[in-house]
Amino acid sequence: MTDQTTALTDRFKTAFRQHPAGVALIAASTSEGPVGLTASSVASVSADPPALSFSVTRATGSAGGILGADTFTVHLLSEQNAPIAAVFSRSGSERFTPEQGWTTLPTGEPYLPAAPAALRCRALTTVPIGASSLVLAEVLDVVVDNHDTPLIYVDRAFRALAADPLEV
Amino acid sequence: MTDQTTALTDRFKTAFRQHPAGVALIAASTSEGPVGLTASSVASVSADPPALSFSVTRATGSAGGILGADTFTVHLLSEQNAPIAAVFSRSGSERFTPEQGWTTLPTGEPYLPAAPAALRCRALTTVPIGASSLVLAEVLDVVVDNHDTPLIYVDRAFRALAADPLEV
Repeated sequence: MTDQTTALTDRFKTAFRQHPAGVALIAASTSEGPVGLTASSVASVSADPPALSFSVTRATGSAGGILGADTFTVHLLSEQNAPIAAVFSRSGSERFTPEQGWTTLPTGEPYLPAAPAALRCRALTTVPIGASSLVLAEVLDVVVDNHDTPLIYVDRAFRALAADPLEV
Repeated sequence: MTDQTTALTDRFKTAFRQHPAGVALIAASTSEGPVGLTASSVASVSADPPALSFSVTRATGSAGGILGADTFTVHLLSEQNAPIAAVFSRSGSERFTPEQGWTTLPTGEPYLPAAPAALRCRALTTVPIGASSLVLAEVLDVVVDNHDTPLIYVDRAFRALAADPLEV
């Protein structure tokens, strides 16, 4: 890697560190048990047919389990879900404990009823780049539960919205 | 479309309406002049090599101009940029006016110096789904200027962050 490339990567990281994102928890059932990870890259791509995208940065561990699963659940998290978002963003922390309130969908995927929305998905296309993978997934089913205030990730911290919309 | 499919699309839209996102302004130079659009789907995919993703919902108009351009600029917007984000999210509103402060990069793409970060990009892969396209783009250059507070889009409104990080 040249110095110029290093500088570009650093500037890229600096730019995106300040770019806010919603927070999702993606989970799948595997032969070795449930796996899950916190993702700040989930975005709506198409409403008809319903499809979303996200990326993961490795093909091992929890990300590998999700990439290898036939179907998985994408939970869109609220401010009230910040503690479980933090747990699933750290490696080695306790996951899928009884206290976290996980259940299983009739179709077998892990399901967190405390999330305001859960989308059951199947990957349509996975595009590798560097050590990362960009996933386009079709949405097979959606459970929308409530409208808690959303959770935001920016500058390596979990944040909440300010109370009032901006005047534009 | 069956009733069940309609209901799924509705539930999908309801779920993502509450999912917050950063706001970007993507712009390109075309033979018919500059084009631009506000996007809430821009996400970092890989830092090495630097790459990002976004989606557009049509292949005509401004989106078609960006999809057809060799290179384009992705501006990550701040709370202070909310007025121009609103202009570029409405069709028919005045764009690329002198008052908006646009300049042009030496490589020819439209550039908005008032944005905290601008990334010059080239599409690597475009995956169509329904009427939408998911784009994976390599990042050729990054200009990072300042650290204004970020701009957030949720529930069809532009919002700001609450002042303090959440305790988790």
